[in-house]
Amino acid sequence: MSPSESPGPTPADLLAAMPFAAHLGVELHEAAPERAVGSLAWSPESCTVGGVLHGGALMALADSVGAVCAYLNVPPGAGTSTVESKTNFLRGVASGKVHATARPLHVGGTLVVVQTDLRDDQDRLVGQTTQTQIVLDPKHGSMG
Amino acid sequence: MSPSESPGPTPADLLAAMPFAAHLGVELHEAAPERAVGSLAWSPESCTVGGVLHGGALMALADSVGAVCAYLNVPPGAGTSTVESKTNFLRGVASGKVHATARPLHVGGTLVVVQTDLRDDQDRLVGQTTQTQIVLDPKHGSMG
Amino acid sequence: MSPSESPGPTPADLLAAMPFAAHLGVELHEAAPERAVGSLAWSPESCTVGGVLHGGALMALADSVGAVCAYLNVPPGAGTSTVESKTNFLRGVASGKVHATARPLHVGGTLVVVQTDLRDDQDRLVGQTTQTQIVLDPKHGSMG
Amino acid sequence: MSPSESPGPTPADLLAAMPFAAHLGVELHEAAPERAVGSLAWSPESCTVGGVLHGGALMALADSVGAVCAYLNVPPGAGTSTVESKTNFLRGVASGKVHATARPLHVGGTLVVVQTDLRDDQDRLVGQTTQTQIVLDPKHGSMG
Repeated sequence: MSPSESPGPTPADLLAAMPFAAHLGVELHEAAPERAVGSLAWSPESCTVGGVLHGGALMALADSVGAVCAYLNVPPGAGTSTVESKTNFLRGVASGKVHATARPLHVGGTLVVVQTDLRDDQDRLVGQTTQTQIVLDPKHGSMG
Repeated sequence: MSPSESPGPTPADLLAAMPFAAHLGVELHEAAPERAVGSLAWSPESCTVGGVLHGGALMALADSVGAVCAYLNVPPGAGTSTVESKTNFLRGVASGKVHATARPLHVGGTLVVVQTDLRDDQDRLVGQTTQTQIVLDPKHGSMG
Repeated sequence: MSPSESPGPTPADLLAAMPFAAHLGVELHEAAPERAVGSLAWSPESCTVGGVLHGGALMALADSVGAVCAYLNVPPGAGTSTVESKTNFLRGVASGKVHATARPLHVGGTLVVVQTDLRDDQDRLVGQTTQTQIVLDPKHGSMG
Repeated sequence: MSPSESPGPTPADLLAAMPFAAHLGVELHEAAPERAVGSLAWSPESCTVGGVLHGGALMALADSVGAVCAYLNVPPGAGTSTVESKTNFLRGVASGKVHATARPLHVGGTLVVVQTDLRDDQDRLVGQTTQTQIVLDPKHGSMG
């Protein structure tokens, strides 16, 4: 099948492959190799002390959108797995949505590095996650 | 009140203050300044591609247990907030439980650094999270 | 002295305050709160195995330029100290110069987060460093 | 040649392969797969503001000793390269020596994760570095 006949997985396909992200309420809006965009709405059950979103919820959002971005940068049939993830938390989020935009910093044959900005409804940077993903060949695992 | 009359919050109290952790199924077994221990059972809804626990679920576990450890190292009335979090993922988890043990690497007046080992049922290290927490004075927030 | 009479420290002043940076051959070209720029030339004594710049040399460059950027974002008389530093190494450098550009991701009263891109002579991203700096009040230390 | 005839590289051999480490004055005392130990003495030219060791010097020490540990965990002929490095700085060092002890957290076929504790002469933890190293096969590079 030629590329024009195979536009690749849709955001819905990609989200369905990650039950945890769907369980948390992560939404995926754009999914392309150069940019993946998702969001997570504030909810009481995603909070920690003080009614702000739990760091774990923010990292799960970033990890999900970042994984999609990494996956779209590897060859057909290959998958990815997160090797390490670093997040700076810059501002608490007590309402609205958090918007995640993931972009590749580096695409190599063995490793892909993705950086995900997390912004609130006022477009303020609330966090940033940088992740290294290892490329898994078709024999070892896939995300599709 | 003397310390002997005030044993501090129980694991149940601490977990109740973090709705996200409870929502995910994080359990808290020990809560002391020198060591906090919790766990998360594998479940289909906490997985990513391939039936392994999602990195976000592991980071949420580590962040929850690490936050408890940090909180128990700050003065009464003070709280903490995660400033940055770094996780290395060393091995996928496809069944059983992940056991998190958090210990302080450093306790200062402004910052507390906590390190959390994540182990599987065979006691293999599956990940490690190191977090910097900022100490919030009673006027700005608390975890109790 | 009013701000208009006191344009702040020059790159030379700032570099002189960091003997290690000067010792390594770090050069500082621009120093402003929104952007600090420096560079380090490849040299045999800054290499590791294989004739590529040692990761430690790249981190020292990033730490120096990032510290300048952080320092220029704190009140007069205050200083900063690096709390944590994370670098992704994306490409080896075997000749030419590495150019470091540091920008603040977040400026708070207690913490400043600075991100420094490292690029080679072909403007390729060879690494990126993100650092958290703590603000030290005049009583505890200063960089000027 | 049998293992008993080939005890592997000595600390002096390993240090000679890293000109930057030698240039800074890093000393290497032990070099074994399960533990590598090195040190760096305080000196005026390794300082930043305030007469404390520059973060870049501490990271260069950790990176050098950690690289040795990683290298000793890969097959003969293979080498390693640092993919990412994270350091927490816990205490300033204004005199004496910093002692670095590196141990593997994880040894895989593609990636090795090494953690290096940095301690002062009073055995206080002054920093900790965790690094991911990629294994380079003999065709791509080596450290010996």
